[in-house]
Amino acid sequence: MNWDAPLGYKFAVVDAGFRKPAREDLALVISEVPALAAATFTANVFCAAPVLVGREILSRREYVRGVLINSGQANASTGTEGERACRESLRLAAKELSLETDDLLPASTGVIGSPLDLDLWSRAAPKLASGVGGHGAEDFARAIMTTDRFPKLVRAEARLSGGMARICGIAKGAGMICPNMATMLAVLLCDIEIAPDLWRGLVREAVEQSFNRVSVDGDTSTNDTLYALANGAGGVRAEKSEAGEFGRIMAGVLGKLAYMLVEDGEGGTKVLHIRVSGARDALEAEKAARTIGHSPLVKTAIYGEDANWGRIIAALGRSGADFRPEEAALSLGGVELFSGGRPRLSEDIPELKRIMAGKDIHAHISLGSGNGEYTLLVSDLTHQYVDINAKYRT
Amino acid sequence: MNWDAPLGYKFAVVDAGFRKPAREDLALVISEVPALAAATFTANVFCAAPVLVGREILSRREYVRGVLINSGQANASTGTEGERACRESLRLAAKELSLETDDLLPASTGVIGSPLDLDLWSRAAPKLASGVGGHGAEDFARAIMTTDRFPKLVRAEARLSGGMARICGIAKGAGMICPNMATMLAVLLCDIEIAPDLWRGLVREAVEQSFNRVSVDGDTSTNDTLYALANGAGGVRAEKSEAGEFGRIMAGVLGKLAYMLVEDGEGGTKVLHIRVSGARDALEAEKAARTIGHSPLVKTAIYGEDANWGRIIAALGRSGADFRPEEAALSLGGVELFSGGRPRLSEDIPELKRIMAGKDIHAHISLGSGNGEYTLLVSDLTHQYVDINAKYRT
Repeated sequence: MNWDAPLGYKFAVVDAGFRKPAREDLALVISEVPALAAATFTANVFCAAPVLVGREILSRREYVRGVLINSGQANASTGTEGERACRESLRLAAKELSLETDDLLPASTGVIGSPLDLDLWSRAAPKLASGVGGHGAEDFARAIMTTDRFPKLVRAEARLSGGMARICGIAKGAGMICPNMATMLAVLLCDIEIAPDLWRGLVREAVEQSFNRVSVDGDTSTNDTLYALANGAGGVRAEKSEAGEFGRIMAGVLGKLAYMLVEDGEGGTKVLHIRVSGARDALEAEKAARTIGHSPLVKTAIYGEDANWGRIIAALGRSGADFRPEEAALSLGGVELFSGGRPRLSEDIPELKRIMAGKDIHAHISLGSGNGEYTLLVSDLTHQYVDINAKYRT
Repeated sequence: MNWDAPLGYKFAVVDAGFRKPAREDLALVISEVPALAAATFTANVFCAAPVLVGREILSRREYVRGVLINSGQANASTGTEGERACRESLRLAAKELSLETDDLLPASTGVIGSPLDLDLWSRAAPKLASGVGGHGAEDFARAIMTTDRFPKLVRAEARLSGGMARICGIAKGAGMICPNMATMLAVLLCDIEIAPDLWRGLVREAVEQSFNRVSVDGDTSTNDTLYALANGAGGVRAEKSEAGEFGRIMAGVLGKLAYMLVEDGEGGTKVLHIRVSGARDALEAEKAARTIGHSPLVKTAIYGEDANWGRIIAALGRSGADFRPEEAALSLGGVELFSGGRPRLSEDIPELKRIMAGKDIHAHISLGSGNGEYTLLVSDLTHQYVDINAKYRT
């Protein structure tokens, strides 16, 4: 695509000194005109200060001018002082940008319990403001990374009756990833003009189909936030009759970002696609998929390229999903390994070795009790995962 | 204690050839007289053939003569052929021992999907029978090990009004440990005489207080079985009035075995004791403790000796337990780290370093919403865990 970002958005990133070793760690995206905003936030009870503040801002207004994200300091579990610091950080940046404090939506990522250092914010704000327009979407994606190995950026175009709309999704996250209503941090930018209710509905559905179906470690973060902006700068309006198709394109962008979170899952080497079908309903299918996808025995077997189907069956059996054991069947990469309550194949066939050696591994579990389906993407559990997380703060 | 096992029990172990490299892998305990049997089994839907057969035998009779356990072949997910093979293995051994097939209770452990090799059983049965009495309780404990690093054997004495009763508990397990109604495999031997209903009640309660409160990996096995035998060979009868005290001693034996499972948790270096108090009820406390105890981020932090309380708080926050965040408090080794919604202490104090360097680490979470309590013991998540489980079958 011959564009960097949807029309009417500008970026700025600076090294504010939050992270050691030093690198860009403060990122801003500004819309030239007020942008319609939708958001989804973590379901964690201990939600971080920027989640509380972002939610509060959006309870008062539908349109904003930008999103401000820092890495290195999560500002989570920091109490009312953390909320005050979050508002002050927005004020410092807004002042330099000649905006109101509420024009900016906040998000933070880093170590829980680590508060914002407002001295660093004071020094960074003028540099940030003077840099607006000097950076691009990928700079923004890089500045919000923590343990991520690569930036996560997806662009798409939607051709509507009125013309073309541009969509750009940016996300970060590699650990503490088990999004519940949103992912770690993500921003969706769009230059379409759209009715607020329609926009919020499309965003909710796209998140449900994407971020809510991936997991690295089963740990829902305290800071999960997705902000979705539509600024109308492209001059194209999305009509209700076009919403279905447009929503599918948006869900596709978020789905690609969600896949990248798993691909970049801490220490991960593979992506396991767990598809459960034939469940009584979608919730039963989800229960089975999540139990399998969070089993450390399953995740280490995938890492070891071991078609250890017994561990998948054992996890399924303790999941609490409602099905009859003799109706269940399991295949890996299309090869049936278990059905009718017993093994179907020696796992030592060359085809299975080839399947397990691949990067993407597809497990399909059918339960034979209904039409409920769910697909969950998870990363494997590796030596590097332990390395990263046993030493995160040292 | 100057005794090996409770009165009236004899052991035999042989190398039946189930395991490579070769070592004793078939274990028998025989009571000289019929012993009252109680049992608890896995809650996994895909329960193994020996679980089905053991449950069936105990539905028909209260008294048995012994327990027969093999390692190396789990006989799980093997269908009706697996059940037939299990019964045939009992028949082969019983014949050599001049017993009925139903006199023996079965249990198996090893790779799921791997069936019993009946040729090996035929050859082993005569050797097993001729060896009865030539081995002790620890030989039995060793022969049922799989990835265990040490045998798990606990002895206790109960002084009742009628005299002394001897109790001996034996367990195995290091992975796929998240017992639900029983542990991987355990045998409790006692020479007391006791009423069947009273015995079953005491066993159920003791299991609930011990094995059901530990976890290595959150993965409830397909083979979890505890058999508890009381053969009356000691000539002492437990009266109902003494049941409370006797039950506490039994629960103490099982509690020590349960601790040893976590201590020997695959690749584990530490035991995290998670005590949740002040919950609305015990179930809410359990929900919080299990979410924290199964979090890979918490488990790797413990391994890294990192007092990363934010990960415990984040896991608590997604647990679904009902409490108000500002009422929650967290301490590690008695040092309060979090309360009132914010950090209470820099974690860089020397005392905290000393606490995290210990083998047993005590986390206490109080929720301030009631009197519900629960304590869960879990192992840490280490490089060795990944080693063991990525290469289990290679």
